[in-house]
Amino acid sequence: MNPPIDLNADLGEGFGRWRLGDDEGLLDVVTSANVACGFHAGDPSIMRRVCVAAVARGVRIGAQVGYRDLAGFGRRAMEYDPAELTADVLYQLGALDGFARAAGDRVRYVKPHGALYNVAAHDTTVARVVAEAVRKVNPSLVLLGLAGSTMIHEAEQAGLTVACEAFADRAYLANGTLLPRDRAGAVLHDEQLVANQALTIARDNYVLTIDRVRLEVKADSLCIHGDNPAALALVKATKRALEAEGFGIRSFV
Amino acid sequence: MNPPIDLNADLGEGFGRWRLGDDEGLLDVVTSANVACGFHAGDPSIMRRVCVAAVARGVRIGAQVGYRDLAGFGRRAMEYDPAELTADVLYQLGALDGFARAAGDRVRYVKPHGALYNVAAHDTTVARVVAEAVRKVNPSLVLLGLAGSTMIHEAEQAGLTVACEAFADRAYLANGTLLPRDRAGAVLHDEQLVANQALTIARDNYVLTIDRVRLEVKADSLCIHGDNPAALALVKATKRALEAEGFGIRSFV
Amino acid sequence: MNPPIDLNADLGEGFGRWRLGDDEGLLDVVTSANVACGFHAGDPSIMRRVCVAAVARGVRIGAQVGYRDLAGFGRRAMEYDPAELTADVLYQLGALDGFARAAGDRVRYVKPHGALYNVAAHDTTVARVVAEAVRKVNPSLVLLGLAGSTMIHEAEQAGLTVACEAFADRAYLANGTLLPRDRAGAVLHDEQLVANQALTIARDNYVLTIDRVRLEVKADSLCIHGDNPAALALVKATKRALEAEGFGIRSFV
Amino acid sequence: MNPPIDLNADLGEGFGRWRLGDDEGLLDVVTSANVACGFHAGDPSIMRRVCVAAVARGVRIGAQVGYRDLAGFGRRAMEYDPAELTADVLYQLGALDGFARAAGDRVRYVKPHGALYNVAAHDTTVARVVAEAVRKVNPSLVLLGLAGSTMIHEAEQAGLTVACEAFADRAYLANGTLLPRDRAGAVLHDEQLVANQALTIARDNYVLTIDRVRLEVKADSLCIHGDNPAALALVKATKRALEAEGFGIRSFV
Repeated sequence: MNPPIDLNADLGEGFGRWRLGDDEGLLDVVTSANVACGFHAGDPSIMRRVCVAAVARGVRIGAQVGYRDLAGFGRRAMEYDPAELTADVLYQLGALDGFARAAGDRVRYVKPHGALYNVAAHDTTVARVVAEAVRKVNPSLVLLGLAGSTMIHEAEQAGLTVACEAFADRAYLANGTLLPRDRAGAVLHDEQLVANQALTIARDNYVLTIDRVRLEVKADSLCIHGDNPAALALVKATKRALEAEGFGIRSFV
Repeated sequence: MNPPIDLNADLGEGFGRWRLGDDEGLLDVVTSANVACGFHAGDPSIMRRVCVAAVARGVRIGAQVGYRDLAGFGRRAMEYDPAELTADVLYQLGALDGFARAAGDRVRYVKPHGALYNVAAHDTTVARVVAEAVRKVNPSLVLLGLAGSTMIHEAEQAGLTVACEAFADRAYLANGTLLPRDRAGAVLHDEQLVANQALTIARDNYVLTIDRVRLEVKADSLCIHGDNPAALALVKATKRALEAEGFGIRSFV
Repeated sequence: MNPPIDLNADLGEGFGRWRLGDDEGLLDVVTSANVACGFHAGDPSIMRRVCVAAVARGVRIGAQVGYRDLAGFGRRAMEYDPAELTADVLYQLGALDGFARAAGDRVRYVKPHGALYNVAAHDTTVARVVAEAVRKVNPSLVLLGLAGSTMIHEAEQAGLTVACEAFADRAYLANGTLLPRDRAGAVLHDEQLVANQALTIARDNYVLTIDRVRLEVKADSLCIHGDNPAALALVKATKRALEAEGFGIRSFV
Repeated sequence: MNPPIDLNADLGEGFGRWRLGDDEGLLDVVTSANVACGFHAGDPSIMRRVCVAAVARGVRIGAQVGYRDLAGFGRRAMEYDPAELTADVLYQLGALDGFARAAGDRVRYVKPHGALYNVAAHDTTVARVVAEAVRKVNPSLVLLGLAGSTMIHEAEQAGLTVACEAFADRAYLANGTLLPRDRAGAVLHDEQLVANQALTIARDNYVLTIDRVRLEVKADSLCIHGDNPAALALVKATKRALEAEGFGIRSFV
């Protein structure tokens, strides 16, 4: 029998009047919810609703911490003083944990968002600041990051438990990073291709890169995007394919 | 021997490059710190520093929750949906609690700020929403509010412990509210007058209103303003006067 | 032959990553574009795009000025000092005019948004502040407001040209205000009903209120909502009905 | 007789309840006011007041455009898409121009702020985007930047008139950049030293770097900092020294 694998998705990324993605639909599929904490997206009302809905479904709540940049959705790299980054991470984590506790659970893991995710994937200083901030809040929090990244390495160094994620719907480069979104073929839209990539990751521990190279990838979790109806259908197909192959879908924490 | 009385002050009300008030100076005097939580003032770095400094001095940490209005410093009344207000209060409380815990203590009480304080002092719906939100987070949190206000009443109805505050440096109207800041004589600047008002409140449970009426006021805490060097000197004089009269200065929680 | 009538819609109400409504689709239909200016919605990139697209189609650009409240989409009433409101209106108008000029035209009119629209419709002080602010910027700017409202009256008093709007897809109360959105029947969804209401307004100068009373309404413009595909279809149907009846669709400025 | 030289200062850098620097005091001394436009600092009410006060004194108004980062005061480098940067610059310029016009003048020049200033001083792409955005708004706007910088070069390439600034109270490195603020000796506090550096720049067209090297600097304007009472006194002393030496103090535009 196969080991379990987790499905995680970014959730609660609306703000005020604006909605993004189908939070309810995704919560019916995933086992881990990366909840936006108000700095790149998410407002208190949304955070509260998502936490309640996640707990009702037994979905684990993670803090999707990001740079303070609503206008840029946290996707713009920003120069941050380490002390400021630490404080911003603590703030977001604390705020979300309040909602998680009010809903009957608590924040179980942390996943950096957007530019912070990308920078921490290769920048030792930033990765270390994030890892230390998480450890300060609660050393039993899990750090969810890109398999093989500096972020994962620094989290381990800090004594945190880590969970490694891979992407079923994104093209990989040979160095293990993702083909940037603005490049042709960066995002896979075909149900069969996505399900296949999910299976080769979960079962065979590799992905075929954009250059047709086998890249070893050991993942505890697959990150899925569901910000449009087609994507949600894709996610469900992927889940069915994994289950058909005998994988249990279960959170890493 | 006299019962103890608390001194509370609004702290951490800077934002980014901007500073407001002498946080360190005030923390040497007060026993309860109302820490801004980022919605009307305060940023994560300031919140973190104030929490660390408060814990180092044994000063109790309270959440100064306010409307989401940085440009208006939370002093503009805003129409809020009850569910939104609840979520905004939970968010601010959770964020501050993260810093308080990281500093080795936790949030002990809540004091609404600015327009929220003023509205909740007389509006039953808003007062109830605040009280219920606080209770949801932690029923052992104390609600600090204006003595005799609807906020205090609703907090008691919700089963919360309350602490009542009065003002040594503000003129009162006969109905128990404060003379608005933009009116002549609203703020007392004379050391002797302020110390006297502090003593009549703490010892004799009354204040002399602007119309020279004795108004009964039972206060667990005196709120002091220290946003300029003169005010800080005033606060110290008040504290000395209370101590000379045999009052212990101690937090209500 | 019938006099021309204008169709106006709220546009550019996304922010950063978030989109709202079909700006391009609506610009193909309307003759006046109420462009959000960044305080309740809209960011500089969106404002720029909408101005360029409006000028390309000969659609008039109006400033949809609102309260500074992104989280509440400008729909929450806020206490504003008159001087602050004046400054906030000037700021938004200036910013949008920069984009309008860069696109080859300029801001032609002003329409308050959300809570500011509602408050100014009956509050003389607020209406006067808005009217005076607009006049200060440019006395040839037109004020677009609710037919019969205090806002229209104060704008006329200030010497501004006004344009009165009515709603083809909203139910009216006998006092000339709209049935609030959260009430049953507040928004009309039926193509025939909406087209009929547009015609009775444009041709016969009345609407039938929710209580089946004939309410006189003289409108220079019909405000249309297009924030979903169905609404856009409705708008097109309305336009066709007006044109079939011999109305020219043309901006009031 | 000596040619005139300009004195410029950053003004209007408060926000809401927060004040920074002595705007009125500085406006009595400088000939050019770099007014913050709301993205890194400054709110509409402050912008309006500063414009009115500047025009009353004949001080020229410039737009101090910056990154959208209130929490970081625009001092954090941020990744910006060129189109977004263009739009953000246009927005800020338009908003300030509205106030300048209402006060009876208009924006005469542009000076990038903080991280944008620093990045544009050496990054060709960013400098070009800023220059093109300014030109789009009005090709007669002057670009005020660091003498010898890429920003000045690109502005000239774009056909803009430029004004070069130097610093009387900052230590220079041999490559023409400023010693970073966090380094010892970065900011000069001695009245005589500052006045001397002002004179060697204005009269002799050089500064003595931190390594005692003569660095050629041709400046049309001296940037002065006045965010504390001592700095304001320093500025006044510098102005007196320049006038005693026969320099007229006059704006470059």
